Amino acid sequence: MKPKLKIIPLGGAGEIGKNMTLIEYEDAIIVIDAGLMFPESDMLGVDIVIPDISYLLERRDQVRAIIITHGHEDHIGALPHVLPRLNVPVYSTPLTCGLIEVKLKSHKLLKDATLRTFQMGETLNLDPFTVETFHVSHSIPDGVGLAVTTPVGTVVHSGDFKFDPSPVDGQLTDFSKLAEVGGRGVLALLSDSTNSDSLGHTPSETTISESFSRVFAMAEGRIIIATFASNISRIQQVIDTAVRFNRKVTIVGRSMQDNVRMSLELGYLRAPDDVLIRIDHMHHYPSNEIVILCTGGQGEPTSALVRMANHDHKQVTLVEGDTVILSATAIPGNEEMINRTLNNLFRAGAFVYYDQLMAVHVSGHASQEEQKLMINLVRPKYFVPIHGEYRHLVLHARLAQSIGIPRHNIFIVENGAIVEFDELGNARLAHETAPASDVLVDGIGVGDVGTTVLRDRHHLSQDGFLVALVTLDSHTGEIVFGPEIITHGFVYAEASEDLIAGTKEAIIGTLKKGGRGTALSAKLKDVLSQYLYQQTRRRPMVIPVVTEV
Amino acid sequence: MKPKLKIIPLGGAGEIGKNMTLIEYEDAIIVIDAGLMFPESDMLGVDIVIPDISYLLERRDQVRAIIITHGHEDHIGALPHVLPRLNVPVYSTPLTCGLIEVKLKSHKLLKDATLRTFQMGETLNLDPFTVETFHVSHSIPDGVGLAVTTPVGTVVHSGDFKFDPSPVDGQLTDFSKLAEVGGRGVLALLSDSTNSDSLGHTPSETTISESFSRVFAMAEGRIIIATFASNISRIQQVIDTAVRFNRKVTIVGRSMQDNVRMSLELGYLRAPDDVLIRIDHMHHYPSNEIVILCTGGQGEPTSALVRMANHDHKQVTLVEGDTVILSATAIPGNEEMINRTLNNLFRAGAFVYYDQLMAVHVSGHASQEEQKLMINLVRPKYFVPIHGEYRHLVLHARLAQSIGIPRHNIFIVENGAIVEFDELGNARLAHETAPASDVLVDGIGVGDVGTTVLRDRHHLSQDGFLVALVTLDSHTGEIVFGPEIITHGFVYAEASEDLIAGTKEAIIGTLKKGGRGTALSAKLKDVLSQYLYQQTRRRPMVIPVVTEV
Repeated sequence: MKPKLKIIPLGGAGEIGKNMTLIEYEDAIIVIDAGLMFPESDMLGVDIVIPDISYLLERRDQVRAIIITHGHEDHIGALPHVLPRLNVPVYSTPLTCGLIEVKLKSHKLLKDATLRTFQMGETLNLDPFTVETFHVSHSIPDGVGLAVTTPVGTVVHSGDFKFDPSPVDGQLTDFSKLAEVGGRGVLALLSDSTNSDSLGHTPSETTISESFSRVFAMAEGRIIIATFASNISRIQQVIDTAVRFNRKVTIVGRSMQDNVRMSLELGYLRAPDDVLIRIDHMHHYPSNEIVILCTGGQGEPTSALVRMANHDHKQVTLVEGDTVILSATAIPGNEEMINRTLNNLFRAGAFVYYDQLMAVHVSGHASQEEQKLMINLVRPKYFVPIHGEYRHLVLHARLAQSIGIPRHNIFIVENGAIVEFDELGNARLAHETAPASDVLVDGIGVGDVGTTVLRDRHHLSQDGFLVALVTLDSHTGEIVFGPEIITHGFVYAEASEDLIAGTKEAIIGTLKKGGRGTALSAKLKDVLSQYLYQQTRRRPMVIPVVTEV
Repeated sequence: MKPKLKIIPLGGAGEIGKNMTLIEYEDAIIVIDAGLMFPESDMLGVDIVIPDISYLLERRDQVRAIIITHGHEDHIGALPHVLPRLNVPVYSTPLTCGLIEVKLKSHKLLKDATLRTFQMGETLNLDPFTVETFHVSHSIPDGVGLAVTTPVGTVVHSGDFKFDPSPVDGQLTDFSKLAEVGGRGVLALLSDSTNSDSLGHTPSETTISESFSRVFAMAEGRIIIATFASNISRIQQVIDTAVRFNRKVTIVGRSMQDNVRMSLELGYLRAPDDVLIRIDHMHHYPSNEIVILCTGGQGEPTSALVRMANHDHKQVTLVEGDTVILSATAIPGNEEMINRTLNNLFRAGAFVYYDQLMAVHVSGHASQEEQKLMINLVRPKYFVPIHGEYRHLVLHARLAQSIGIPRHNIFIVENGAIVEFDELGNARLAHETAPASDVLVDGIGVGDVGTTVLRDRHHLSQDGFLVALVTLDSHTGEIVFGPEIITHGFVYAEASEDLIAGTKEAIIGTLKKGGRGTALSAKLKDVLSQYLYQQTRRRPMVIPVVTEV
């Protein structure tokens, strides 16, 4: 049997985040991106979610490289968890590499990692793959897409892209490379679906500049701007606007400081001398000459902005007359936290600008017309939408179909699916799949929090628990201790004496009916659950503990 | 001392939902609205949130009436909890009253309630208050605003309103009444702030009709439309469009069926004979002659739409070619559930239209230009923004200021604040406040779930709990039972034998160092918490139980 080319999304297909795509041919695999996802609201207590790499671990000798398309968390965030188990070379452009270094350093993993940089436009030879890289504009500089030439044909991976006509760094998405690759013939295009439910074009990143100018012109006090720590283009625009309005910029928060320092060193961020000042020098300047840049655009409880909003920040106390710009959009699930932060900012007397009120944020992802342009430039035989929730994949697929890709040449697949191409370039969905479930990271534990633990956490979060303790004399069956009740998260125990007394009576009543061992425990569980539901219409986790001494 | 007029928001000021406003003069109080709020995401396990009415209960003989402005949950939803404790007459327009009846009936409270209807435009004499009612357009028919003439002056309460130029029921917001009242002189305007961060005008409800027509024209199979059960205007537009496109409409779900039946009876909903069909008659018609109307626009797990999306609905199984319209907007906090529902609908093969893709929903609340119009018509001396999160109140206040209301005549107040007006019509904020915290309803319990229970539920939801049991001989101090570990929501116990064994060792080690009673328990709690954190970087609720027999 001739070897087949396989494309396998392990993350990012059918969800936003934790992006990872494999391209496999014979005994060689390249991995594109290794991102994390923030937990959904029902993943209680989980810190982050990363892709399942067991498919790769089973083929560890075949993995040639991890190629990172750009430096956002959803593309690099899983590296600290992947590299200790799969230490292969990581290829990226200089800025992306800088961001990876910052991240690995904070995990004390930098010295063991093999990081290799390439300039966008360079070609990587990872036999049997030839990987041409080309620039794509996004909300961070130095992002790339990939044209991977394989023995079966060329696969184009768009990375996260938009066709920004006036990007902050002046670097357009590489139309000519895309057209050239398209002209040579492309087997399959894997393209960013994130915004496939956005009509038209995504506005240019530089449109933000106009909004910033309007706010800067009105502001009489300090200006505080919150955005993602990795949004280098946005940070550049803040610095540029500050210069125009004769303000100094101070960066608050470790992650953003690290990223800014590194981006300045590498030349991805430009700031005239003396514009950036240390926070402890802020008091040398009047309020109307200050800009504070910080994180917190998602209302993250420990972020600088949220601390400021809650009067809980050591160095910045909000005062009436401050102006705050929330230069971010909500990741689904964060809306409540963001709204709460906004309310607290207003309570503190600040003038606050957010996307409802002014265009202070734009997306970094292509809208429908740009997605069509990508397809039309690349002119692939097959189309595989990636990077998006299921609905985005479907909408992107319909878009592709509407501009001429035949329905049966489009693969709407979710994580773990294997799209196979034979030597004639014919594609089919393989019957087998790669393991690709969400791997939940909670504290040190990676993957040990699963269905059972989450189900218990959910149950406990809704109605708490009640442990009923009783110790029996193993000879007589008489109660020698208890019944004793331990309950948390169920009722306010101090105000529920009758309920607790009733519960104890129910235990004693059940014990009187006899029985021992597990049968008795099961009986107690039923009786108590029923009693408590009748009394409260709540269903705490009931755990009877009958011991015998 | 001359009596003062008091305006007291008990709900809805500084938050969205659970609206309730009091107007008090001497020994008389009228209550405007009695709404519920859906719990925020950190109110774990809570069913609904209602206003604190203890201020009213302390003055129960003074409460003349509850006047309901319209039939939405955030204005009527607390009645089943308020009326059993404060059984005063409830005044409302016929449709609103019908919705209240449906609600009270489902709580078996209808026969004890005193419901009085008025036609919009009617005047209620509730000595010393004269309450003129006037129509306001909103996303439900028969909504009113109130002009309450008191011995000190007239207070206008806007209700929830927009200035819809082409409302579905043809009833405009009553410009002339507002202008007339304004001309007579208004002491204070209390106005709906919900959309004060929306620029311009809110589109008319009838603009939806055009979107519906576009979708109906394209749909080749069944059309399923999800909206709020109480959105009578939207339901009317669905019926009208169905008639135009020769489709039958079936209503799925008890609450919507009840509302539709009642609205038809009262004449607030118009449907030609034979358009509405029973669900079990659906199979008599081809798919392209069917419309299914249901709830689920918020992704509520038990709603008809979500069940359909999950292939879990008894009567409707989604098939390829079905078209779904989500005619609703997300209540903050519901975005994830809605997105999940959308993804599942797409997975089932449906064509799905939601607000990103087409204008299938409009707000029922005034945007900034309409809010200005309200202020300009009423021309109040004082302005009190209500119905909105804190930021909305501030933005609404700034809007009022921008069109001429002096800053010191605007009261940005939150629930429980008391705005007092003396006999000369001078206002001030009272030093005292009314109790106005969120009252959480969980099962039968009303108000018993407070900070402690919620803190415990949050703790349990993140890291679960671990109970460590050990029984000692009361004479010798020797262990006679245990140590035994019960843990849920912390680690997957079956895969954590080493951790459990280590925990037991830590217990035994601690016991060896001696100590008894609470000191020993406290020591065990410290030792175990520290051990478990070191091992897992998680912090379960640790509960040592040392018994002696």
